Amino acid sequence: MTEARTSCDWLIEAAWVIPVLPAGQVLEQHAVVVTGDSITAILPIAEARANYAPVHHVQRPNAVLLPGLVNAHCHNPMSLMRGVADDLALMPWLNGHIWPIERAVMAPDFVSDGIALAIAEMLRGGTTCCNENYFFPDAQAHTYARYGFRAAVSIPVIDFPSAWASSQDEYFDKGLAVHDAYRSHPLLSFSMAPHAPYTVCDASFEQIRRYSEQLDIPVHCHVHETAQEITDSLAQYGQRPLARLDRLGLVNEHLAAVHMTQLTPEEISLCAARGVSVIHCPQSNLKLASGFCPADALLQAGVNVAIGTDGCASNNDLDMFDEMRTAALLAKAVANDATAFNAFSALHSATLAGAKAMGLESKIGSLEPGKQADLICLDLTSPEATPMYEAVSQLVYAGSRQWVSDVWIAGQCKLKERQLQGMDLERILATTRQWQSRIQQVQRP
Amino acid sequence: MTEARTSCDWLIEAAWVIPVLPAGQVLEQHAVVVTGDSITAILPIAEARANYAPVHHVQRPNAVLLPGLVNAHCHNPMSLMRGVADDLALMPWLNGHIWPIERAVMAPDFVSDGIALAIAEMLRGGTTCCNENYFFPDAQAHTYARYGFRAAVSIPVIDFPSAWASSQDEYFDKGLAVHDAYRSHPLLSFSMAPHAPYTVCDASFEQIRRYSEQLDIPVHCHVHETAQEITDSLAQYGQRPLARLDRLGLVNEHLAAVHMTQLTPEEISLCAARGVSVIHCPQSNLKLASGFCPADALLQAGVNVAIGTDGCASNNDLDMFDEMRTAALLAKAVANDATAFNAFSALHSATLAGAKAMGLESKIGSLEPGKQADLICLDLTSPEATPMYEAVSQLVYAGSRQWVSDVWIAGQCKLKERQLQGMDLERILATTRQWQSRIQQVQRP
Repeated sequence: MTEARTSCDWLIEAAWVIPVLPAGQVLEQHAVVVTGDSITAILPIAEARANYAPVHHVQRPNAVLLPGLVNAHCHNPMSLMRGVADDLALMPWLNGHIWPIERAVMAPDFVSDGIALAIAEMLRGGTTCCNENYFFPDAQAHTYARYGFRAAVSIPVIDFPSAWASSQDEYFDKGLAVHDAYRSHPLLSFSMAPHAPYTVCDASFEQIRRYSEQLDIPVHCHVHETAQEITDSLAQYGQRPLARLDRLGLVNEHLAAVHMTQLTPEEISLCAARGVSVIHCPQSNLKLASGFCPADALLQAGVNVAIGTDGCASNNDLDMFDEMRTAALLAKAVANDATAFNAFSALHSATLAGAKAMGLESKIGSLEPGKQADLICLDLTSPEATPMYEAVSQLVYAGSRQWVSDVWIAGQCKLKERQLQGMDLERILATTRQWQSRIQQVQRP
Repeated sequence: MTEARTSCDWLIEAAWVIPVLPAGQVLEQHAVVVTGDSITAILPIAEARANYAPVHHVQRPNAVLLPGLVNAHCHNPMSLMRGVADDLALMPWLNGHIWPIERAVMAPDFVSDGIALAIAEMLRGGTTCCNENYFFPDAQAHTYARYGFRAAVSIPVIDFPSAWASSQDEYFDKGLAVHDAYRSHPLLSFSMAPHAPYTVCDASFEQIRRYSEQLDIPVHCHVHETAQEITDSLAQYGQRPLARLDRLGLVNEHLAAVHMTQLTPEEISLCAARGVSVIHCPQSNLKLASGFCPADALLQAGVNVAIGTDGCASNNDLDMFDEMRTAALLAKAVANDATAFNAFSALHSATLAGAKAMGLESKIGSLEPGKQADLICLDLTSPEATPMYEAVSQLVYAGSRQWVSDVWIAGQCKLKERQLQGMDLERILATTRQWQSRIQQVQRP
């Protein structure tokens, strides 16, 4: 203690640290040093204590520390519609329930209030970054910024008028204005978000490609969600949707293609060759009987496979631990190979691969000095977490978001011993119940 | 308050009561009255307060009350091997890991200590009854009785010597002696538990059929778990396993056939006609890439479909909420129909159908006056449970075992505001960690 120690903001010690990079590594009895918004060191606990003088010293002797999970596809305002209509096929679900409700309630406060509820759920579940896909990017940006949550705000484009915009020009103009207003915000990024090939025309897709290139932002789009989508595209365009997107110049490293349950081997190769990211939403695909994404075949081909929960109206939660487990389990059955999509692959998909799909892999997704301090700590003392033979397996196959004790985003503590920091949860829940009443009135007028 | 009120042990009030029978019913603002080990009434809260004088009055204004979940297939001693070997195919997993460990450690204390850990996990997760499948039925019976947990003890039969028995005669003699010793225990029932068609000879199956009939107990057996099992049976016996069991007289209402991932339409019809119960373990089937049980086709044919977690070495938990959700989600994808295996069907499978598979449908599985007071209460106030449009959907598609606040078995409170009653959890966890060390030594000698 005679030598001078370096000051830092946080020294967080854990029994196990899983950095995600290097792949498969589990460091025992290590600490993560955080200064400002960044990770500055990862080293053995004894060394960390000898060398650093932290403002906050967190000791978690029975815990595992890892990067915050990245939910690569969500519609968070729809958290207000959790379980509003289940056990229905996609089109009756959309036409009979989701769209009528949205027509009645969609407005900036619906978006803000739904996102606030979602942030509470995400933080309590170890998710520190999400890839939003909804209307009202201004309300999105405002709300994620207000709560200090890392998110990609979506610039929506769809061939129909909505409460947000009434023409294609307006979708682009208003969306880009939000981008310009928030482009330098440290926690916000953006995506062009065409709804799907079956709801966006060629001219809009060409415009989207130009903006994606100019602004260097991802194109976040539902693609090949169902067999019907393929059939309809063949009838309307004479091409499968991915082939049409390729003709329009969109099949490249900017494309984050969500769902992808219908893929030929040639399409898998094309995605690999072009650096497309596939965002796998296994529970949504199962629940809507959309089909099976060939997640292991994509991984084997070298495609970047991220994981998303989809919206709460179709899932019905934002539980990335459950989604990661479902991805790992389902991929084995689909591949007919119990060694497929192993525990580490699932964790990688739920962290670094999600970051990559969002264009954020240099900032987040792994614990490395210089990266943003987005990290989560899980307590492993419950009977459900005992015994503990291998940390990554335990997290993926037995893990629960309930084990998440602490969460940091950009070095700010957002959940401390399971208590949300800087959020008025009671107010958020009261507001949610008001929306519930209003939505019930729409359903039963 | 001038009239005399009837005394009772428990008056449990909830915002929603789901009795499971009548099917689909959700009672609002109701109470369940418990006297001794039984439910004596279910009625509106105001009426209950006017008519009953309870010893214990439990008010849960934001909760749902339902029958305890029934885990219809588990190997609970294997909880000590949670996550010991993952991402492996079935035979390397068994031959390289599970069986060598079992050979080294299997003994009555392994069975008792594993079951104690499992009981803690099950109670904290809302499971009140399980269908055990393991060796050492004496240790099973002793441990379930000790902790007051409802279980079917298994009389194991397998064509190999084990630490429990060294010959077929010994498997039967020792198993039946345990049955005779515990046959009148109020919480224990029994099953004949031949391991699988590929590990049990015709003569033993015939003996099992006789005992099943004489004792009127189920035959709890892994059947058609993998395609390989079918191929091997055709080679060895010239029959598919189910046909062979039929030849031996076992395809009847006593049969609780676990897994059943390989089924022809004719076999589904046979199961329906004969009153066979199918015990669906969706997560285990996915993880081991065993195949897809046609759960919805079975339901449509009128087969009783129960749900089990399988053992912690293959799942890796005893989470019946997660298993129920996986069953509901997966069935839709397998049936290619988003309306298949709806939320209520999943809840029915996880309660009353499990009871029926165990021969206990007259005692448990639904909330009805005269039935045993096995019930669970879930708190719906968290952000993950908000909003709340429909109680059954919420439980199945968004529900978490973490919401379970209180559990009763036969009128005894086993979990009170998430605290285990009458269990020394610290001691159980310490013992588990000792087993972990011992098992790690077997793995890395």
